[in-house]
Amino acid sequence: MHQEQRQRAHAHFKSRGIERALLANPYTVKWLTGFAPPVQVGFNFFAGGPPLVWYEDGHFTLLVVDAYATDTAAFDEQVDGAVITHLGYTIEQPLAGTDHLTAALRQVTGKSTGGKVGVEEREVPAYFLAVAHKMLPGGADFVPVDGWLEPLRMIKTGEELVKLRENFALADIGQAAARRAVAAGKREIDVWTEIHSAIQQAAGRRVPLGNDCVVGYRQNNIGGWPLDYEIRPHDSLIVDLSTILHGYWSDGCATYYAGEPTPQQVAMHRTVQEALEFGMSLVRPGAVAREIDQKLRQFIAAAGYPVYPHHSGHGIGVIGHEAPRIVPYNEERLQEGMVIMLEPGIYLPGETSVRLEDALLVTADGAEVLTKHDKSLP
Amino acid sequence: MHQEQRQRAHAHFKSRGIERALLANPYTVKWLTGFAPPVQVGFNFFAGGPPLVWYEDGHFTLLVVDAYATDTAAFDEQVDGAVITHLGYTIEQPLAGTDHLTAALRQVTGKSTGGKVGVEEREVPAYFLAVAHKMLPGGADFVPVDGWLEPLRMIKTGEELVKLRENFALADIGQAAARRAVAAGKREIDVWTEIHSAIQQAAGRRVPLGNDCVVGYRQNNIGGWPLDYEIRPHDSLIVDLSTILHGYWSDGCATYYAGEPTPQQVAMHRTVQEALEFGMSLVRPGAVAREIDQKLRQFIAAAGYPVYPHHSGHGIGVIGHEAPRIVPYNEERLQEGMVIMLEPGIYLPGETSVRLEDALLVTADGAEVLTKHDKSLP
Repeated sequence: MHQEQRQRAHAHFKSRGIERALLANPYTVKWLTGFAPPVQVGFNFFAGGPPLVWYEDGHFTLLVVDAYATDTAAFDEQVDGAVITHLGYTIEQPLAGTDHLTAALRQVTGKSTGGKVGVEEREVPAYFLAVAHKMLPGGADFVPVDGWLEPLRMIKTGEELVKLRENFALADIGQAAARRAVAAGKREIDVWTEIHSAIQQAAGRRVPLGNDCVVGYRQNNIGGWPLDYEIRPHDSLIVDLSTILHGYWSDGCATYYAGEPTPQQVAMHRTVQEALEFGMSLVRPGAVAREIDQKLRQFIAAAGYPVYPHHSGHGIGVIGHEAPRIVPYNEERLQEGMVIMLEPGIYLPGETSVRLEDALLVTADGAEVLTKHDKSLP
Repeated sequence: MHQEQRQRAHAHFKSRGIERALLANPYTVKWLTGFAPPVQVGFNFFAGGPPLVWYEDGHFTLLVVDAYATDTAAFDEQVDGAVITHLGYTIEQPLAGTDHLTAALRQVTGKSTGGKVGVEEREVPAYFLAVAHKMLPGGADFVPVDGWLEPLRMIKTGEELVKLRENFALADIGQAAARRAVAAGKREIDVWTEIHSAIQQAAGRRVPLGNDCVVGYRQNNIGGWPLDYEIRPHDSLIVDLSTILHGYWSDGCATYYAGEPTPQQVAMHRTVQEALEFGMSLVRPGAVAREIDQKLRQFIAAAGYPVYPHHSGHGIGVIGHEAPRIVPYNEERLQEGMVIMLEPGIYLPGETSVRLEDALLVTADGAEVLTKHDKSLP
């Protein structure tokens, strides 16, 4: 699992003279190993430290608490990766996850040849870096490598596309449930529970769910978690959903109405639909992120509406927002194999709002739409 | 909010000669400030680092990304606490949350008198510790303070009891929904979505939910997330629920049956009920954790059943498992104001299992049961 990611990382480190590294960024760990701990109620209590990856001589070793042993089995079978699980929960002695993780770290660093060592120093806790420093022969020459692997994540592998497609299909199921659920008299949270139930029943398991479920009459009607605001006749409801299955994110947004939308809402909705279609027509290899952003904003402004204050879109993968960002300053060019979201919107604070969002896989000559949810007016 | 916690922490640090500290353990931060970031889909992408607390001269300053500004407002109003929010998300420039958090950290450490500085070094990322080191006058003499505040968390404040009671009431709602939902032909995940919907609709907002929802015929029928195992006639279903509202956890377990339980299940269920009642009768100030654990295990063994392999119980608060642990080695004595869970069970792997769990507030002369869910046989 995720061998191609490790090959890319190895080549990148090698080209920059890094032959060993201590990695702890959770997105790095997920991308390199495929290991995706559950996030619904936070990380395992008993771990004593974050999952760490030790890289040396082209091999990657994942150090992780035993509670997650089964989740790492697929990675362990790969020739260029290994897993060391350490004791977490026990009733026989005081909890000492940190000591056990430290022992695992000593095991890998104690065999190291030492020298220059890349470190994700923005993530590795100071304590574990000190342990590595003590164990590495002749001390260690630490080199910060935070962010180094992020650009490598932009082009999705075949394996990642399978995971992403599965997530987008789940989000589509959630959007269909939302369309059925929205009605005057229900609250945002009521619609949300119907969405989440439909997704989890389809997946046959728990699936974390973000992002927004907000009625148009909220003052901040761009986004927010579902609360107990009641949906009234003709209210708009923005439903922006991200599922996280196998550690990969989906995303997608639609806007629904309680009964008939007003003429103003119809006009706004059509404008956003046209903007999204226009934006999608711009997506192809070589397109500049900044230019797509600018053209989308101009489209909304030309229709006489206030321009949305957020990004026009973003990449997606092991995290909900990845490179490339579709924002005013970004000169990056799209490349085949990227997966990006586009999400124009119009917001009249305290009145009504609309946002529509699709996911696009950049192909050799354009784009494939990965989200299939219905974004039409009722 | 949480002033009493900060007073306790201040007194403890002072008694051990620590006049300033850099804290990053998420449970420390939550307990000291009351600030509880959402956990459903992981921490804010754009923060660039964990929430940090700087302690100096008896004052606590929370450094946190602007996305959470409203969640920290209650803390900010307190005289012995302050909040510095830093920029996270922006579309005008590349994301640089780490730089902005660094600037906030420089702001507080740059004004410090320096000297001995307590550090939660198992949590503070190496990078931020290096920043603090550079800013503190004359370098810093770092002292690890990991775990120092954990014992102080055992006795709950009045404010914490309000939050805990609200969570236990939500878990009760979930258990009532579970009792209604369990039926042959449904899957674990179907029951789970009914539980979660009932809880979130009652709360009027998203509420993270743990822990277990497992049919008796699973090989590991002690615990696990709900999957697509179908409930068959006479199957047992263990439902162990934790809600997390305002950053505090509830916990509680019951066992339900699809239709009539078998005579064997009835006998097991009654034994566990009696064990739990017996255990609860032992809870009072001065009772030794290890002895409660031992007596509960002996009760199950005396009834002729295999003894459960997990703890007999545990404290609860800003995290689902806190001190005091009710386990074989623990010599700690219960004190008034502690909140503990008791959870005896009987497990016949691959056949059937039962666990019942209640929460108890240790009072001056015994205990008050905080969980009100129905644990009776059908």
